[in-house]
Amino acid sequence: MEWIYQQPVKIVFGNGKVNELKGVIQELGKANGILVCSRSFKKSGLADKVFEQAEGLLTAVFSDVSANPEVTEVDACAALMREQGSGFVVALGGGSVMDLAKAAATIATTEDSITLYHGTGKELPAAHLPLIAVPTTAGTGSEVTGVAVLSDHASGKKAPISSPNFYPEYAVIDPELTYTCPQAVTASSGIDVLCQAIEGYWSVNHQPICDAAAVHAAKLVFDYLPLAYQEPFNASAREKMAEASIVSGLAFAIPKTTSSHAVSYPLTNVYGIPHGEACGLTIDYFTRVNAQGKDGQRVEDFAKAVGFADMDAMADAIIELKREIGLRTDLTDFDLSQTQIDELVQLCHHPNLDNNPVKITNDILYDLFDTLTSQATKKQP
Amino acid sequence: MEWIYQQPVKIVFGNGKVNELKGVIQELGKANGILVCSRSFKKSGLADKVFEQAEGLLTAVFSDVSANPEVTEVDACAALMREQGSGFVVALGGGSVMDLAKAAATIATTEDSITLYHGTGKELPAAHLPLIAVPTTAGTGSEVTGVAVLSDHASGKKAPISSPNFYPEYAVIDPELTYTCPQAVTASSGIDVLCQAIEGYWSVNHQPICDAAAVHAAKLVFDYLPLAYQEPFNASAREKMAEASIVSGLAFAIPKTTSSHAVSYPLTNVYGIPHGEACGLTIDYFTRVNAQGKDGQRVEDFAKAVGFADMDAMADAIIELKREIGLRTDLTDFDLSQTQIDELVQLCHHPNLDNNPVKITNDILYDLFDTLTSQATKKQP
Ligand SMILES: NC(=O)c1ccc[n+]([C@@H]2O[C@H](COP(=O)([O-])OP(=O)(O)OC[C@H]3O[C@@H](n4cnc5c(N)ncnc54)[C@H](O)[C@@H]3O)[C@@H](O)[C@H]2O)c1
Ligand SMILES: NC(=O)c1ccc[n+]([C@@H]2O[C@H](COP(=O)([O-])OP(=O)(O)OC[C@H]3O[C@@H](n4cnc5c(N)ncnc54)[C@H](O)[C@@H]3O)[C@@H](O)[C@H]2O)c1
Ligand SMILES: [Zn+2]
Ligand SMILES: [Zn+2]
Repeated sequence: MEWIYQQPVKIVFGNGKVNELKGVIQELGKANGILVCSRSFKKSGLADKVFEQAEGLLTAVFSDVSANPEVTEVDACAALMREQGSGFVVALGGGSVMDLAKAAATIATTEDSITLYHGTGKELPAAHLPLIAVPTTAGTGSEVTGVAVLSDHASGKKAPISSPNFYPEYAVIDPELTYTCPQAVTASSGIDVLCQAIEGYWSVNHQPICDAAAVHAAKLVFDYLPLAYQEPFNASAREKMAEASIVSGLAFAIPKTTSSHAVSYPLTNVYGIPHGEACGLTIDYFTRVNAQGKDGQRVEDFAKAVGFADMDAMADAIIELKREIGLRTDLTDFDLSQTQIDELVQLCHHPNLDNNPVKITNDILYDLFDTLTSQATKKQP
Repeated sequence: MEWIYQQPVKIVFGNGKVNELKGVIQELGKANGILVCSRSFKKSGLADKVFEQAEGLLTAVFSDVSANPEVTEVDACAALMREQGSGFVVALGGGSVMDLAKAAATIATTEDSITLYHGTGKELPAAHLPLIAVPTTAGTGSEVTGVAVLSDHASGKKAPISSPNFYPEYAVIDPELTYTCPQAVTASSGIDVLCQAIEGYWSVNHQPICDAAAVHAAKLVFDYLPLAYQEPFNASAREKMAEASIVSGLAFAIPKTTSSHAVSYPLTNVYGIPHGEACGLTIDYFTRVNAQGKDGQRVEDFAKAVGFADMDAMADAIIELKREIGLRTDLTDFDLSQTQIDELVQLCHHPNLDNNPVKITNDILYDLFDTLTSQATKKQP
């Protein structure tokens, strides 16, 4: 077996680390930085606090970031960076903020729009502003990946762009930042952590270092996500989920995600299901599908390493977990028509699907949506 | 819990990768390189092959490297690098060759002797020649650590030096290179992999990413080391041990090693026991000691994660493993006097001992040597 591994991001983890950002910026050795964050952190005062604690090293703020960030927002952020002559970027937020900041940090060094690169396959230029990523969800793992997922409302696409540029210089993980996540965000971003770990493990690009990270992260999600969901201020549950998130980021950064992520994109784009919830919706189904494939033993091995009797027990536990944290276990509430299902099946053919260890045919996708839309699956919790 | 993580080495893994070194050198973008290897590879023709395949990018060879490399050898290698104006270094060998090359690659950019820095605590300058590490044992993990272990026969010291300089740019792991390891080297370097994983996990500097790596590596050693020992050309056993080695390197690169490594240094220096065998000699003893400490639960958790019922079962399995691969399980063959034991106890107080989760007192060390020298422990296999 052949594999490669690179992990260029310097990781700093611990409660209160957000208050030590100035030191990290000084280590980076840059000035005139821009803080990219969501509007909610402007309102909550967190953005102001971070700004003040940087004692002049941050000189601008951009906070027009939506969940599932849009190419127009990237261009607006890049325009501000150019105008300010920004020297580096601090991204304080969930995957949406980090992804927008990654893309803007490269585009800012050009006169281009990100649409030139989004979904076109055109390679980004190598120049970019260095980035310090500070995740506030647990989470996408975007702080240790070279990927940014962007949406283009005009063309209807949601797609990841990959570039070595997108690896942050530093990831500063402060579990306390996640305490204010609404329950629904904790649930959705938490199941994303699990999906990324599982998909990184079974991806056709799997490799041993990422395997080890995947097992570690998945164990933590099963053990701590329900508690983090029920008790937002439970320090140990939040810390363990923050750990799961960063380790899951390492688990999929190289192997990339697979079927559940591919199927999530249309579910988010067309039906507005939050990213993690959309991924989680199909992860138990694909667990059983992939266990039947030629690499099925790996799915069994993973389930056992995580502590289950077999993959079936793990798949059942995932459904149970979704119920416990208030996530959809099916699509019955959308009352989808056959035409809508036909459209979904077409839209699922995203490049990530090719990373799946079993070839996902239209037959399988129809069976998936059949299962998700049949009332029979709607058991009471 | 607070922790950091950095892993700056680019890893390339796979059978036959040694034949693709030219591509790696071209990626590095340097010319006029020096190949550092052991005399045995000059004799076997491997050095010539690597040299030729580099098609002019390598211009010098240094092969005066002993097992447990000496400061005078480092200085000699650095002198050749200066003379040649070397632009980069390829280290092809076990831990001994890699460690010598790391130290020489920095010293070559100065007019100093390595003795100015070895065991003195003086920090190395930041300049250094970039290094491509190609391990031929499985192994020390030196290809992914910022550490070089050197001996100074004049002063009688064997001690590690740490420096960010010492991280190679690339680690190229070709499991096929280990096929020619003598059985004793397979055994000794293989048990080193296990010790590094266990010690990285229980080190006071433990952190989760390294924990995950430690569990992964230790499992592989228990599963594949006996086979790699019995069948040197068993491709799957060699590949899995090469994987264990690199992953174990990640496991201890940040947490560093502890009691078994501290105690190994005098056993190697004074009694000539090979590095890995010397570490392995005490790892089951310290497993039981550390399981009694305040972090004892972590030792139990590790044993369970690796697949044992409890830490006692793991300690027993380690003794069994040593027997299977022809390593010492005690020191009875040295027939040590009380004076020699007194001396050993003094020499064990190495800085690595402070990384151990239980404070290792002289009482514990006397008990250790008492156990290792008592005939009662010498059960027949
Ligand atoms: N780049 C990658 O590798 C990668 C991987 C997976 C997902 N993603 C992308 O990341 C996005 C999802 O990111 P996410 O799950 O982190 O959610 P998010 O960033 O979209 O945030 C969700 C909502 O929670 C709010 N929020 C975030 N942190 C908060 C906090 N601490 N307190 C209060 N409110 C908070 C945000 O303002 C937003 O309204 C999607 O676009 C997804 O496609 C990227
Ligand atoms: N830098 C670190 O992080 C680190 C960690 C652990 C140990 N070490 C150090 O590494 C050294 C031990 O390294 P090691 O266990 O790899 O052994 P080694 O490099 O000392 O090699 C042992 C012997 O095996 C021979 N050999 C190596 N590979 C061979 C092959 N493929 N075919 C035939 N012969 C081969 C060598 O020439 C040598 O004679 C010790 O000095 C130890 O202190 C360093
Ligand atoms: Zn995701
Ligand atoms: Zn060692």
